[in-house]
Amino acid sequence: MSEKIMLSEDRYFDPDPKHKEIALGLYKQVAGKPLVCPHGHVDPRMFADPDYDFGSPADLLLIPDHYIFRMLYSQGIPLESLGVPRVDGGAVESDHRKIWQIFAENFFLFRGTPTGGWLAQELHDVFGVSEKLNGESAQAIYDQIADCLAKPEFRPRQMFERFNIEVLATTDAAHDPLVHHKAIRESGWKGRVVPTFRPDGVVNIDRPDWRENIEALGEVCGFEITSCKRLIEALENRRAFFKSMGATATDHAALTPLTCELSAEDAEAIFQRALKGETKGHDTEIFTGHMLMQMARMSVEDGLVMQFHPGSYRNHNPTVFERFGFDKGCDIPVPVDYTRSLKPLLDRFGNDARLTLILFTLDETTYSRELAPIAGHYPAVKLGPPWWFNDSLNGMRRFRDQAMETAGLYNTAGFNDDTRAFPSIPARHDLARRVDANWIAGLVVRGIVDMDDAEEMIHDVAYGLAKRAYKFD
Amino acid sequence: MSEKIMLSEDRYFDPDPKHKEIALGLYKQVAGKPLVCPHGHVDPRMFADPDYDFGSPADLLLIPDHYIFRMLYSQGIPLESLGVPRVDGGAVESDHRKIWQIFAENFFLFRGTPTGGWLAQELHDVFGVSEKLNGESAQAIYDQIADCLAKPEFRPRQMFERFNIEVLATTDAAHDPLVHHKAIRESGWKGRVVPTFRPDGVVNIDRPDWRENIEALGEVCGFEITSCKRLIEALENRRAFFKSMGATATDHAALTPLTCELSAEDAEAIFQRALKGETKGHDTEIFTGHMLMQMARMSVEDGLVMQFHPGSYRNHNPTVFERFGFDKGCDIPVPVDYTRSLKPLLDRFGNDARLTLILFTLDETTYSRELAPIAGHYPAVKLGPPWWFNDSLNGMRRFRDQAMETAGLYNTAGFNDDTRAFPSIPARHDLARRVDANWIAGLVVRGIVDMDDAEEMIHDVAYGLAKRAYKFD
Amino acid sequence: MSEKIMLSEDRYFDPDPKHKEIALGLYKQVAGKPLVCPHGHVDPRMFADPDYDFGSPADLLLIPDHYIFRMLYSQGIPLESLGVPRVDGGAVESDHRKIWQIFAENFFLFRGTPTGGWLAQELHDVFGVSEKLNGESAQAIYDQIADCLAKPEFRPRQMFERFNIEVLATTDAAHDPLVHHKAIRESGWKGRVVPTFRPDGVVNIDRPDWRENIEALGEVCGFEITSCKRLIEALENRRAFFKSMGATATDHAALTPLTCELSAEDAEAIFQRALKGETKGHDTEIFTGHMLMQMARMSVEDGLVMQFHPGSYRNHNPTVFERFGFDKGCDIPVPVDYTRSLKPLLDRFGNDARLTLILFTLDETTYSRELAPIAGHYPAVKLGPPWWFNDSLNGMRRFRDQAMETAGLYNTAGFNDDTRAFPSIPARHDLARRVDANWIAGLVVRGIVDMDDAEEMIHDVAYGLAKRAYKFD
Repeated sequence: MSEKIMLSEDRYFDPDPKHKEIALGLYKQVAGKPLVCPHGHVDPRMFADPDYDFGSPADLLLIPDHYIFRMLYSQGIPLESLGVPRVDGGAVESDHRKIWQIFAENFFLFRGTPTGGWLAQELHDVFGVSEKLNGESAQAIYDQIADCLAKPEFRPRQMFERFNIEVLATTDAAHDPLVHHKAIRESGWKGRVVPTFRPDGVVNIDRPDWRENIEALGEVCGFEITSCKRLIEALENRRAFFKSMGATATDHAALTPLTCELSAEDAEAIFQRALKGETKGHDTEIFTGHMLMQMARMSVEDGLVMQFHPGSYRNHNPTVFERFGFDKGCDIPVPVDYTRSLKPLLDRFGNDARLTLILFTLDETTYSRELAPIAGHYPAVKLGPPWWFNDSLNGMRRFRDQAMETAGLYNTAGFNDDTRAFPSIPARHDLARRVDANWIAGLVVRGIVDMDDAEEMIHDVAYGLAKRAYKFD
Repeated sequence: MSEKIMLSEDRYFDPDPKHKEIALGLYKQVAGKPLVCPHGHVDPRMFADPDYDFGSPADLLLIPDHYIFRMLYSQGIPLESLGVPRVDGGAVESDHRKIWQIFAENFFLFRGTPTGGWLAQELHDVFGVSEKLNGESAQAIYDQIADCLAKPEFRPRQMFERFNIEVLATTDAAHDPLVHHKAIRESGWKGRVVPTFRPDGVVNIDRPDWRENIEALGEVCGFEITSCKRLIEALENRRAFFKSMGATATDHAALTPLTCELSAEDAEAIFQRALKGETKGHDTEIFTGHMLMQMARMSVEDGLVMQFHPGSYRNHNPTVFERFGFDKGCDIPVPVDYTRSLKPLLDRFGNDARLTLILFTLDETTYSRELAPIAGHYPAVKLGPPWWFNDSLNGMRRFRDQAMETAGLYNTAGFNDDTRAFPSIPARHDLARRVDANWIAGLVVRGIVDMDDAEEMIHDVAYGLAKRAYKFD
Repeated sequence: MSEKIMLSEDRYFDPDPKHKEIALGLYKQVAGKPLVCPHGHVDPRMFADPDYDFGSPADLLLIPDHYIFRMLYSQGIPLESLGVPRVDGGAVESDHRKIWQIFAENFFLFRGTPTGGWLAQELHDVFGVSEKLNGESAQAIYDQIADCLAKPEFRPRQMFERFNIEVLATTDAAHDPLVHHKAIRESGWKGRVVPTFRPDGVVNIDRPDWRENIEALGEVCGFEITSCKRLIEALENRRAFFKSMGATATDHAALTPLTCELSAEDAEAIFQRALKGETKGHDTEIFTGHMLMQMARMSVEDGLVMQFHPGSYRNHNPTVFERFGFDKGCDIPVPVDYTRSLKPLLDRFGNDARLTLILFTLDETTYSRELAPIAGHYPAVKLGPPWWFNDSLNGMRRFRDQAMETAGLYNTAGFNDDTRAFPSIPARHDLARRVDANWIAGLVVRGIVDMDDAEEMIHDVAYGLAKRAYKFD
């Protein structure tokens, strides 16, 4: 039973004919614009090695992508049977055709989900797959993708160019020596791939790998990190290095958005307790809060854009974490309170236009209640796109619906794709541009903005806002 | 002034002609399917007695239904004047025509509410009422309903069959001897009416009637419940009995979703304090949390589906509670945090596919933030329909909008009507099928799913998901 | 480049032709009804002085309106450059044409915001401006507004009459001698302008100006306020005075919705600590909570409608507060919990139909979770319109969508404009009437209410509900 994938030209738009016509018109104005990708998790190694090989279709599309395998897992399919590598190196399924077959037979689980949408588009647009993925079509589609991947035009650099990516930011640990970024620069290839400075591994002292990270940071800095003071020196040092390698931004996660200012003595005392593995009470939270203040201070000084996305309870499932490690679809959000938590940071730096603080949230209740009023008042603050909902039609709509009236469009930072799945980038930007064109068309058709404004807005949303907010010029 | 009730064929659908056409087509595919009713509060006595008499129209529709009389009360109409019985047996209005008149004169209060909607449909479809209910039409409509109720085809069993109910689950206390269920089975009548095991009365030690319930449970088990250990034995014992009587599920309420694992000693100590009426601090919350863990453990063992709906502050209004007792429209929701609260239970049982844990919420902020990510990851978890919003067009839409993209449709448990009002069951299922057909049509018309997928989805939503999740087969 | 403002007759309505037609029809039924303005911050001085002069266009539209200048500030434009007066009297821009030019050049920031919408309508409808405001049109539009303001028909009383305002309530401190209200009454002018009793300044003991306010209150009462008991006497005294001046309502803000009942001794002890500047712990919160109970008690006695809007963290930005004072766009909401917090007050007065308690929120998560169930049960409670979202199309829609099905329309208090910007009043009411007509049309077109009901609903929403809830008759 061969069913065709339907990717209609006017997909994702509201059905009202007038609304749809305007949306399609706005979309077409920006559909071909270069892609600005200021935040994501693509591996820079892909672009360092001109002959980089993606491996099998399962290697490319399934095994590294927790958005996909977590849905299968939720229905009782063991991760081992999907080839997800175990921490202990224990056996997992190695027949990639078998893995692909399971995936295809369960692809119906993604009906109505964003993952299902961009995956279908990626298969269609990038690999020319025109049949629906299911148990019957599985192996033929596997062959078709594998054939593509064997061709030179499916090397990452060639795809980067074909995708019309203007700039792609990766996310890199503070101690990362950025060897792949160096290799890219030295190779003479023109693609712009820049690092982003993400020091969570050394700033969040409850991380299981914190001590390793501290040691690795000391090594790359050339001095041992024996104190909080030295940690701060190391971070300043690394930020300068990242900046020299093209970075324009930093990135920070934390369980809560708490910020606070400790005395040097108190910060030092916590750091020493952490070194000894003897942290207590709120040590973790207030140390992170203190370091966020330091990071904001450094951003004021060096101009790196500061991104902050709190509120994800990491590795919520200990069984999966112990067997498979980080980033396996087990991060679950918690409620957050930005108004009180960010106050210390905003008190000190919120009025300083040298700082760009881009806030993200998983707690959508904060859109209208906290984030929009904060961004609509403080010169330093901009709102990032809706994080886990960056590929979600409803999630993007809710963000526009709840934040724009108060924050105003020009206090936002445009779109980012936040993906690990490199070949999905065009599909994600295309979806975002469609959803935004549809949103703006909704304003036009209700007489809220006129077409002149709408045209400027869609260009800003699809391209200009991200470029300016992240200082890519 | 006689006004006709308008029940248009395409009601509840979006107005866009294309959207509406698809919605109507999908709806028609499932409009006649049998009703699966896995969760509700219909009195089993109705089906035990073949000659059960509903009483007057006020007895049937108004006096027992707090969704209706609470709206009248909110406008200052005393519950006494509506015939709601007092705890102390004090006088209340006994002229049911007077009660009905008040109701009819105030029926405009329900404009735009779901209660107004399903009540109009129930009056129309079940009792043939074609006029709008108001002060002028009140007595004629009263007569018309009373005439119906006098006829044999308006006995509960006949309605059950006419409604095409495939299975109806009631909700029953742990100590309930299930005499009506026994009588139904022994009567030879073919209707499938099964109990659901709800042990809140003995598990939530802050209940005013806890000691009575413990005693009643001991009596029905044949041993005195003098310890937590005995309580657990009693519960295991009763679950086996309920299962033998056709139960496939349990049901649990609590103020918060907290789960935790106490030592046997600590649990015992709290139980003993409760027996003496000397509980303190967090005793209530952690004892309930501990018992929920026990319940999950038992569900893994006996296969009963576990339903959990925390977050309702019961009997919020002491004046009404003291005068009229439980379930008088005075339960008010509070915010809940599932991510942290359920972690102990999920740590232990969340990866166990033998457990089916169906979660409900009244705090809609948890849909996208917590429940969808949890259901979209943990094999044991499914999402129930939107509880108090089961008859709410907007509430059902919000649930679909906020939870489906992340959880996926196949991690949900279909629809349930959760009603005490037996004759409203067809109207409620019809409304849900319309709203879901409209939701799926919205996906089709936006190019998110194709018609083949849509047709499978509507069948699952209207019938298959509930049947499978609750193990009715 | 001259661009015309487009104010289409059918703006703000859904684009579906049938929906739009019904919405327009409903809107036209109420577009010309008198304006009931039960809650706002217009300065009564305007109406006391028959020759009151609004000053320059910047004085009228920009400098006093933090909804406008906060958006410019968020983009790094200093408040000094916009002529916002400094607390210390320091120099700020005094060339109002320069200020206006900055505003006009940045007016694109308001694209898609409610502020942008009502401002465009106000310029068009009140001042006849038919060009879009931008850098090029700035000075011509300035001239046009200035010309208008010089004419007698642009005096406040003339505008009040032209706007067809039936009643306008101002908001006034407890110690306010209401001299302007007196002057209005004595002038013989027929416009109905009434005060509202707002005692926050003497009830919230953490206010920086609390002691001054206490002294001022003592002065106006003729006795020194040396105790909590005296404070309560003073408040009763002032309420009677306000009532004699036409007041029908009181208004209360607090950080949290906590209510509680202290013993006379405890309340007195906190009051004495506050007098000495020695408050501690939760003194502030529980004293406010205690005074709210007193206020509810007085409302039961004197019949003044009690308005309560908790949840705004006032003066969040200390830099701006120190330089520019209160109400500068730096109030940021926090999450609130009404269910537990209001319980003490509702326990005591919630069933008393003599009390009308109108609740507002900035935390939209409480609409469906807490406020709608509370209003849909307690006789004393009604829901106010959506506060900061009173001019927001999406905010008003979310309120209707999330609160109406449970609360019912007749437990709401209609619309209020809550504005300081007097000439924007017609635009705000027009927008609300459009949004509500569109909401009700959505119910009609989905078969939820019929046209007869819809017509009664739009009249109630646009006029009757506010008039009845605030006891204007």
